[in-house]
Amino acid sequence: MINKKKFIAVIGGSEPSTKEAKLAEEVGRELARQGAILVCGGLGGVMEAACKGASSEGGVTIGILPGESRQSANPYVTIPIATGIGYARNVAVVKSAQAVIAIGGNYGTLSEISHALQSGIPVIGLNTWSLSKNSQPDNSIIPAQNSTEAVDKALNLVTD
Amino acid sequence: MINKKKFIAVIGGSEPSTKEAKLAEEVGRELARQGAILVCGGLGGVMEAACKGASSEGGVTIGILPGESRQSANPYVTIPIATGIGYARNVAVVKSAQAVIAIGGNYGTLSEISHALQSGIPVIGLNTWSLSKNSQPDNSIIPAQNSTEAVDKALNLVTD
Amino acid sequence: MINKKKFIAVIGGSEPSTKEAKLAEEVGRELARQGAILVCGGLGGVMEAACKGASSEGGVTIGILPGESRQSANPYVTIPIATGIGYARNVAVVKSAQAVIAIGGNYGTLSEISHALQSGIPVIGLNTWSLSKNSQPDNSIIPAQNSTEAVDKALNLVTD
Amino acid sequence: MINKKKFIAVIGGSEPSTKEAKLAEEVGRELARQGAILVCGGLGGVMEAACKGASSEGGVTIGILPGESRQSANPYVTIPIATGIGYARNVAVVKSAQAVIAIGGNYGTLSEISHALQSGIPVIGLNTWSLSKNSQPDNSIIPAQNSTEAVDKALNLVTD
Repeated sequence: MINKKKFIAVIGGSEPSTKEAKLAEEVGRELARQGAILVCGGLGGVMEAACKGASSEGGVTIGILPGESRQSANPYVTIPIATGIGYARNVAVVKSAQAVIAIGGNYGTLSEISHALQSGIPVIGLNTWSLSKNSQPDNSIIPAQNSTEAVDKALNLVTD
Repeated sequence: MINKKKFIAVIGGSEPSTKEAKLAEEVGRELARQGAILVCGGLGGVMEAACKGASSEGGVTIGILPGESRQSANPYVTIPIATGIGYARNVAVVKSAQAVIAIGGNYGTLSEISHALQSGIPVIGLNTWSLSKNSQPDNSIIPAQNSTEAVDKALNLVTD
Repeated sequence: MINKKKFIAVIGGSEPSTKEAKLAEEVGRELARQGAILVCGGLGGVMEAACKGASSEGGVTIGILPGESRQSANPYVTIPIATGIGYARNVAVVKSAQAVIAIGGNYGTLSEISHALQSGIPVIGLNTWSLSKNSQPDNSIIPAQNSTEAVDKALNLVTD
Repeated sequence: MINKKKFIAVIGGSEPSTKEAKLAEEVGRELARQGAILVCGGLGGVMEAACKGASSEGGVTIGILPGESRQSANPYVTIPIATGIGYARNVAVVKSAQAVIAIGGNYGTLSEISHALQSGIPVIGLNTWSLSKNSQPDNSIIPAQNSTEAVDKALNLVTD
């Protein structure tokens, strides 16, 4: 009865480059093909592109929205969650997933990467942030070269 | 592509009476039979009984959890959402639904009823709170006599 | 070094009656006179009236705001907290206090009363909600007849 | 009547190095000397050291706590805010300030830096994270060499 499917978050900005939007759609499509459930912030840009890709393969897409209305979800979200808690919902996006794929993104995406790493949830990066502390690189974000590699790495890192 | 199913929240305490647990299971079963998606707080008691009922009919059950771990969901939750925001998730439970069925419940349930009414989301009550302000009764909670009536009223009140 | 002052929340609607606004201002003034720190939701109506009263006596007023901007606080808030979490901040308003005084109010106030009672934080009521469950009255809200009585009861109920 | 004091957040890890703890205490002391109000997460490590420094100069210290109890604040917090929303309170810590000083820190601190930059709140860094995206450095974190420089830069960057 319990859901044994893998829950993977796709995070990224609401104004992605053409390349990033294409990557996000490919990632969404591949996740759905491999039977995973897509978790995202439910809005536009990378979130919408990933949901569109997943929907094209009949996948389930969860949109954890900042606002109070289910209506604010992009049209490819099948499970809208209206949290009403604004950017604090970034924590819920990553904690509801077993692995995270970050595509491009700005400071909101960086906050999600941070919350995921803080919780020990693996993060795969596609054209995204890199980190260093006191001039020492922090290699916690696992790089991927393309959408297939990102999805494979994410699915392989799901442990629970 | 968009999800046209109705999302109905079932709220109630984690230590229900035998009667309340039976009502919750019936409500969950009936919601699933009628094709609705069940939203709840994801934990035990009324939440678990409702999810169990829905699961027995193959329904989708969303558990919006207070804690940071997906593992804290009851075994009948198919879509666990780990918010990490504690009781503040009560707001998300009701705002993610189009109507709410309250069964028994304590002060946590009363907070969910309040948040729903504040947002204009209809609340159907089964053996639950009643309200008055300055000695005037507030009849916003719509009473139901049994689980079937509660589900029918909830589904009929979904407007968006 | 630790703050030994008593923290008392004043809750109520943003569109109070003239009587309720007067009560709120008196309550704020009396809290400040007795050296207590006022906690509220930081916006208008009862919140602003209470802060105005406290300010007139030089009191400290904490406004725990739903929005993302400190600027949204009413002009009598000395410590604005911008949570950005919307109505979920209602939980923080009551949990940051050692007792709560409810004046009038609508469903938002009822949610705050509920969150306080759930946490075992005493609630004093002035012209506000009354509760019953399964036709049995719930007398957890402690009634007061006027602002002085409300403040005295609240301060006497602070235990930690 | 309105509070014209500057609100500055000090963020950093709960297990700082000796050097970082010393920096935090100096920053707290200097903020209080210059009449600023200290905002922090209210717990141990950098947060406690900064509050200790501010307290030694009679400063006001606000602790925006993740938990539900005011008692979880470090002993130098004069205004404890119990949010009950866990790590999502990181958003409130930075949004309640007009500038942020980051000292060392781990992923939780990085999430706070991200939330601040997303909101356009200036961040001064002392021995903390540095960022790059797609191999291009992001210089949004303003470096400081010592506690006095950090405080001066933070206070000068307050605009509203």
